[in-house]
Amino acid sequence: MVSDEEFSRLRAYVNRFMVLPEPDFAAMQQRMVRQTVPKGGHLLKAGEVCTGIAFINKGHLRSYCLVKGEEVTYNFWFEGNFITDYSSFLTRQPSSETHEALDDVEVITVSYDDMQDLYKQFPGWDKFGRLIAEFIIIGIAERNRAMLFLSPEEQYLNLMKTRPKVFANVPQHYIASYLGLRPESLSRIRKRLATAKKI
Amino acid sequence: MVSDEEFSRLRAYVNRFMVLPEPDFAAMQQRMVRQTVPKGGHLLKAGEVCTGIAFINKGHLRSYCLVKGEEVTYNFWFEGNFITDYSSFLTRQPSSETHEALDDVEVITVSYDDMQDLYKQFPGWDKFGRLIAEFIIIGIAERNRAMLFLSPEEQYLNLMKTRPKVFANVPQHYIASYLGLRPESLSRIRKRLATAKKI
Repeated sequence: MVSDEEFSRLRAYVNRFMVLPEPDFAAMQQRMVRQTVPKGGHLLKAGEVCTGIAFINKGHLRSYCLVKGEEVTYNFWFEGNFITDYSSFLTRQPSSETHEALDDVEVITVSYDDMQDLYKQFPGWDKFGRLIAEFIIIGIAERNRAMLFLSPEEQYLNLMKTRPKVFANVPQHYIASYLGLRPESLSRIRKRLATAKKI
Repeated sequence: MVSDEEFSRLRAYVNRFMVLPEPDFAAMQQRMVRQTVPKGGHLLKAGEVCTGIAFINKGHLRSYCLVKGEEVTYNFWFEGNFITDYSSFLTRQPSSETHEALDDVEVITVSYDDMQDLYKQFPGWDKFGRLIAEFIIIGIAERNRAMLFLSPEEQYLNLMKTRPKVFANVPQHYIASYLGLRPESLSRIRKRLATAKKI
């Protein structure tokens, strides 16, 4: 069980998608637990099964995969949003991702079994589960389109426009990795854009 | 409205995921329409909004994007499964994909408005919508993992194991494109594997 205050941002997040009855919220709040991860610690490690869906109340994280010994940054996660390896969570298979805290992190988490229980008892959570899964699919499609159709420079500008928080909070070399660039290439792009702005 | 026979495979498909009440099925069946696409024709063209979710009763299709004037094959779709650009369908934004019939195709289709209507009236479809969206997310994650962690040869073997229908039905140059390979590279891989098998 988490406090009303700890639960309040998740409640506001759900309300952006749909109206959910109060008993549905209460049942979720009862099942959630609070968890903290210090800066540099891990909420999930590659090889582990992702056992919960976490909602970030404080701090931000990055997820990465280790590909041929190199960390490939896959995403950034900020407060006021969910974080999970949803595929590992759903299939109960080990994750390929590590979720690293880039800051002191506080999350509230619901377990797989509790979530299935909520789906069974509350049709409202089924609807929200559909809407959030659809939201994830739309996000993946947008990212795929950016990678297919945009140049690295356009992808950089697109990221600045759509996710300005990334630039305020995340070290440059992680942003480079996320964009599939070497840090030197990202520096060149930034210089080019700065010069273009001055002209 | 489609006939019981035309609706029977979709019904069986849904039953693999969950038990759905008969009135839910009946409401879907009433709203569906039959559509045919001749071999070489298109169920969806890049630039159009994907207005429906189609279930394939006959034939198979490929989806591709045009990247710098070149067709990049994104997926293959076989009878007994749904086909849609789900992101375009959900956001009502133009698709980047073209869905081309590789064979004479028969589908039954439900429109966006009818689907939203079903979600409102039948909580069972909400649950199915959640399960199918989760299924899509798991599929995307598997494909991403294959592309990140497997060599082209391993990806080829993985595709043979997980989707043997592709090899029975789809021209080699589309398979090469799907695997991100030039047709020559795929030929080399196939020769190497054939030789390895003989030893």
